[in-house]
Amino acid sequence: MITLDARPVLRERSTLSAEAYTVIRAAILRRELHPGKKLNVRELSERLDLSATPVKEALLALSQEGLVLSIPRRGYFVPSIDSSEIMDLYLLRSVIEGLGARLATQHANHQTDHTLLDILGELDSAANTEHTEQYGNLDFRLHQTIWEASGSSRLIKTAETLSGQIRLLMSHSNELPNRLTTSIEEHQRIVDAILNRDAARAEQEMRHHLENAARLMSDSPPGANDQ
Amino acid sequence: MITLDARPVLRERSTLSAEAYTVIRAAILRRELHPGKKLNVRELSERLDLSATPVKEALLALSQEGLVLSIPRRGYFVPSIDSSEIMDLYLLRSVIEGLGARLATQHANHQTDHTLLDILGELDSAANTEHTEQYGNLDFRLHQTIWEASGSSRLIKTAETLSGQIRLLMSHSNELPNRLTTSIEEHQRIVDAILNRDAARAEQEMRHHLENAARLMSDSPPGANDQ
Repeated sequence: MITLDARPVLRERSTLSAEAYTVIRAAILRRELHPGKKLNVRELSERLDLSATPVKEALLALSQEGLVLSIPRRGYFVPSIDSSEIMDLYLLRSVIEGLGARLATQHANHQTDHTLLDILGELDSAANTEHTEQYGNLDFRLHQTIWEASGSSRLIKTAETLSGQIRLLMSHSNELPNRLTTSIEEHQRIVDAILNRDAARAEQEMRHHLENAARLMSDSPPGANDQ
Repeated sequence: MITLDARPVLRERSTLSAEAYTVIRAAILRRELHPGKKLNVRELSERLDLSATPVKEALLALSQEGLVLSIPRRGYFVPSIDSSEIMDLYLLRSVIEGLGARLATQHANHQTDHTLLDILGELDSAANTEHTEQYGNLDFRLHQTIWEASGSSRLIKTAETLSGQIRLLMSHSNELPNRLTTSIEEHQRIVDAILNRDAARAEQEMRHHLENAARLMSDSPPGANDQ
């Protein structure tokens, strides 16, 4: 299974922390731990048959990644996001990542091209075998590769502050009926524009892709079918 | 003189703090305190004929506003920004504030229209009397009014994290030869699009305005004529 890089806090920790991290993260992305839920350390320790320390370390790593919300004196929660915030987030992403795609096209080299084509191939396999969690991780990696190729440190930093919620919402949008087919096509068109060094088209395709996802999601917000 | 709202930390403080805040802020924006300079509390206290407390409170308020950089165990500094970062910042602003103008147009009401026209009138007076510091404050207020009218809390938050550097660079760009005349015209076109409820044009005019400023500034970065 492909996961995002574990955050620094986890890199030097035990394999038990890494295990707790992987399991809790997957449960959040599959919404088995549903948005808004309080994450109780003792409960999670018992469920995972681990002591409290690796669970706490995993929650800390996940909160740094934006996939867990840490509220002082109240504890850890699965972040929830309402419909108006989804539209906000996706519109902001569409312009920031649109600019990212434009700049990435201007800076792209053979290495970037290879990475993008590799991820596109893996996305295709994940879609065909209907591994939506893996698809979500690859989807995120494709977007991350593009914004990192932009060469703009401020753009990267801004995109990173949104990344936890981006990853959470991807797991929702990729489960919408027939979404994977159009999602693959939209990603292909973005990568095609970058490979052809057409910066304006890359920006336009990225904006189109995210505006499209926003529209689909505002028609069926997360949580609508969760109960 | 019109200044930005003092930040919360200052609102409940003494008039001495407010005085220190106003004087230090103006000196930074006029680059009398030049980018990169360490801000020594004792030196500032002597110059302003004030005790250390109001000076420290002013520096704290300015650091919350992004106009002073606070580095733990090293002290306070005037932020500096290099040419590549300027391009980064302005391109990011162009898409974020472009979206802000689009959304503001969709949400605009008579109150927004009035505020924008008022600021435009004041901008015109400041340009005619060549009050560049006042022009910078009004310029910032116009942009802030538009992004706040967007109704997108995430967009507002993102714009706010950039606001200190935005304000600093405005003071530079507005001092470039003949800049005020084109700047006024560009702002008029943005406001005109919003008043005519043409969201696509408002976005386009805002992007054009900021891309233009970025181009001008990369031709003569701050500091080039400061010595």
